Amino acid sequence: MFKVTGRDNETKARAGLLETAHGIIPTPIFMPVGTAGTVKGVLQKNLVEDIDAKIILGNTYHLYLRPGLEILKASGGLHKFINWSRPMLTDSGGYQVFSLSGNRKLTDEGAIFKSHIDGSKHIFTPENTIDIQRIIGADIMMAFDECAPFPCDYRYAQKSVVLTHHWLDRAVTRFSGTDPVWDYEQFLFPIVQGSTFDDLRKLSAEKAASAGMAGNAIGGLSVGEPADEMYHIIEVVNEILPDDKPRYLMGVGTPVNILEAIERGIDMFDCVMPTRNGRNGMLFTSEGIINIKNRKWTDDFSPIDPYGPSEVSLYYSKAYLRHLVVSGEILGSQIASIHNLSFYMKLVSEARRRIEEGNFKIWKKQMIKKLSERL
Amino acid sequence: MFKVTGRDNETKARAGLLETAHGIIPTPIFMPVGTAGTVKGVLQKNLVEDIDAKIILGNTYHLYLRPGLEILKASGGLHKFINWSRPMLTDSGGYQVFSLSGNRKLTDEGAIFKSHIDGSKHIFTPENTIDIQRIIGADIMMAFDECAPFPCDYRYAQKSVVLTHHWLDRAVTRFSGTDPVWDYEQFLFPIVQGSTFDDLRKLSAEKAASAGMAGNAIGGLSVGEPADEMYHIIEVVNEILPDDKPRYLMGVGTPVNILEAIERGIDMFDCVMPTRNGRNGMLFTSEGIINIKNRKWTDDFSPIDPYGPSEVSLYYSKAYLRHLVVSGEILGSQIASIHNLSFYMKLVSEARRRIEEGNFKIWKKQMIKKLSERL
Repeated sequence: MFKVTGRDNETKARAGLLETAHGIIPTPIFMPVGTAGTVKGVLQKNLVEDIDAKIILGNTYHLYLRPGLEILKASGGLHKFINWSRPMLTDSGGYQVFSLSGNRKLTDEGAIFKSHIDGSKHIFTPENTIDIQRIIGADIMMAFDECAPFPCDYRYAQKSVVLTHHWLDRAVTRFSGTDPVWDYEQFLFPIVQGSTFDDLRKLSAEKAASAGMAGNAIGGLSVGEPADEMYHIIEVVNEILPDDKPRYLMGVGTPVNILEAIERGIDMFDCVMPTRNGRNGMLFTSEGIINIKNRKWTDDFSPIDPYGPSEVSLYYSKAYLRHLVVSGEILGSQIASIHNLSFYMKLVSEARRRIEEGNFKIWKKQMIKKLSERL
Repeated sequence: MFKVTGRDNETKARAGLLETAHGIIPTPIFMPVGTAGTVKGVLQKNLVEDIDAKIILGNTYHLYLRPGLEILKASGGLHKFINWSRPMLTDSGGYQVFSLSGNRKLTDEGAIFKSHIDGSKHIFTPENTIDIQRIIGADIMMAFDECAPFPCDYRYAQKSVVLTHHWLDRAVTRFSGTDPVWDYEQFLFPIVQGSTFDDLRKLSAEKAASAGMAGNAIGGLSVGEPADEMYHIIEVVNEILPDDKPRYLMGVGTPVNILEAIERGIDMFDCVMPTRNGRNGMLFTSEGIINIKNRKWTDDFSPIDPYGPSEVSLYYSKAYLRHLVVSGEILGSQIASIHNLSFYMKLVSEARRRIEEGNFKIWKKQMIKKLSERL
């Protein structure tokens, strides 16, 4: 399913093609987050035509609670429910159970939690999160894991990794023992945990690799640790994760984080930053980072981004977008989301081109400088 | 500037063409409301390509407070600020001063009010609302008026009409004595007031007509009075307003209201209903009115409207839209707004076609039945 089509000579960066039932995904790739079956503020048409998203994410936790399995099943799966024909990936709900729901309780069996919507009680297990993701019908499913908080002492991290590995075995068993609910193949990715401890990360990477799945993910990063620690852990883990399978760095991150991770051999990314920060007025542009709420943009009638990653970046001015965001207008969120997601997509696709052309490293160096600038 | 191109034989309905500096508007027409320089939840591209809005509204009150005159002037007017090249109309701020701002005080000079944003004190006069609308640069400007509440006793309504007429004289003087700020012609429409009193409405219609402006508007309706009273007042007023000039019924209304008013010789409409009610899950469809939050739509996977007034009406299902609206997702507001506005636009354009074809009355009768249905 995964083919490396190009490698950078000076770094671990690689370009690839990931084949799924709903299409081929060029890597490195960024995946817009569509938590509850919608990339917030973006029409499916804009996702395809303006942003050209090759794959989007769904959140098992949110979708399980609302619209719920009955509706997802009756509609023919999430692709049909939201009318999206390109690939999709769902996380296993692990991260959300620990970050969103109150009164959660961890047992060997799984995680008991209360819905953040109505307080109702539920349990996620390695098995039922596979069953749920079968119904959702994502092309790529994730194994249920515990995402340890940061900072976290060694003893806790160790216990957490042991539990996550135990759960992985059960998830793989369920995955191998069941058929897709819909008529196409689904993949399961294990998640490497282990906080910021090299030995636990190595252990976890070996465990993930040994599961022999179609790809692997790294979780529990970008949760508060310094960026250099994150980059170090990526290096440690990627030494072990198989080179011929895609590597997905979960929930990361800034454009700089993404380029640094690509350099270290990561292929897939997702992050709420382009949409969530966009709604709050933070824009990633070719010239640097903009906080559109700043007074300095009040009368700047130049385009949001003159290098125009999307049509809206050229169509709308900074002053107008500032007016919309400051006024709390929905359109501000829409424009910022389309622009930021397009910027991210153009960034990874340019990285891919540079890798294939053999000049990734020098390009990356120039970009890091520009991307870090605050205008 | 206005040409009647067709008349219905059995009713007062007429089709026309209204020529403005930014384009020709076919009438009857519905004008989406773009309060603060944005039709809430709708990209300008969707306004043109999906909804095909021929003209949109701006609110002088909102735009004066934010972004403010300095920015509007520096940007080259509202058209350039929001990047909209089709016609625009601005109301005079009268209605908003009375409905939105606290501590307003009416004097002969004008209306003193406090900003709903920061509590700052301002005054609107017949003169400065012309000056402001010159800077905004709308193709059609409105004269500053007092919109009497409903119900309202005769004495109050009479006093209010006298004030509005006094203000109209001053607005016309300012309008005639000033040039456009930008390099194109602007029109001024007087507003007929008089609550639900025939004699006051007649007086006010005669006053408006005598001003000899390019068009006339009827205000102070759809403020709580029964629909039949509104229709009656429209008849009374339209007997007097010149037949060779466009008639604009402000802030009205439901699809049924619009067809009834077209039958009585109204040419132009605006209303927040398609967008505001849309955001709350109320949809106007070819089959009737839908409250998408109702449980019955939970597993209805049919398109929002099989007669598809817009692309989104066919692309998205009722069940998905329900999920989005119930979940408070921005995308729900976007889809509902595009659908409802398209529905309104198709309704008035179909009315226009029927008038020209000479079968408006029979078509209207069938439509009224369907449009009133609650699904």
